[in-house]
Amino acid sequence: MDPALVLRPLDAGDLDLICTHRRLMFGESGRPAEVLAAMADPFRAWLTPRLADGSYFGWAIESGGDVVAGLGMMVIDWPPHPSHPTDGRRGYILNVFVDPLHRGRGLAKRLMAEAEAEAERRGLSYLILHATKAGRPLYEGLGWDATSEMAKLLPISR
Amino acid sequence: MDPALVLRPLDAGDLDLICTHRRLMFGESGRPAEVLAAMADPFRAWLTPRLADGSYFGWAIESGGDVVAGLGMMVIDWPPHPSHPTDGRRGYILNVFVDPLHRGRGLAKRLMAEAEAEAERRGLSYLILHATKAGRPLYEGLGWDATSEMAKLLPISR
Repeated sequence: MDPALVLRPLDAGDLDLICTHRRLMFGESGRPAEVLAAMADPFRAWLTPRLADGSYFGWAIESGGDVVAGLGMMVIDWPPHPSHPTDGRRGYILNVFVDPLHRGRGLAKRLMAEAEAEAERRGLSYLILHATKAGRPLYEGLGWDATSEMAKLLPISR
Repeated sequence: MDPALVLRPLDAGDLDLICTHRRLMFGESGRPAEVLAAMADPFRAWLTPRLADGSYFGWAIESGGDVVAGLGMMVIDWPPHPSHPTDGRRGYILNVFVDPLHRGRGLAKRLMAEAEAEAERRGLSYLILHATKAGRPLYEGLGWDATSEMAKLLPISR
């Protein structure tokens, strides 16, 4: 990574930043602006205590004092599973965002390496994420594979 | 559904049953026996308190007093997301299993209808599951779609 870039952990002061990254990420992936507007306050309210207590953690990369990339992570409770048979946890990576002006410089790769190193420090053996179409080739190149997850949106939400 | 079949909620007495269903389901999907053996005690230990406090719930279908099908469900904490912008929860369906002698009679479909009805009662608008290859066509027929989830197994677990 360019030596002018500095990687640091996220902290409680990064609340706005993470909210912005989440909105920009989903906006680029084609989610409607009105849905992202509806999500904004609930996501902020959800994130605030989790960022404060460290259950949401991650890293930012700064360039000249400005954050130009970020990645969030959580340890989630999950039933012991063939992919992690003796552990009731999996790591979840979310809100990966790189400023458009800084793409193609390996920043997402650097953040993903940090997330994997942290997973190993915490003894996590299985990580998941949800990829945008644009992000997928990066993750495939880093050894990630599609899972069999399926979803259904119920009429109640429409 | 055949009127000789009885649907009932799972309860704490179904611990063994759920463990058996999980093992059989993953066994049929091709997971190695030694991995399923390693998972058995950790899964039981994980499930015991959650089944007791109702955070793991679900339904069984009985035929002449024998359970011939089952489905488990959880409400999981999840960041508000474009698919559920104002709600920090999603429903998770797991351990869907139908006794081989009772397949093709609509039992999985009946259990899934119960899960969706329960989701609506709880105000959940977005449900997820992980499909085995054999289960996937059923879920597709019920309106479920593949998500963009990806996973990575870290070297630590090998």
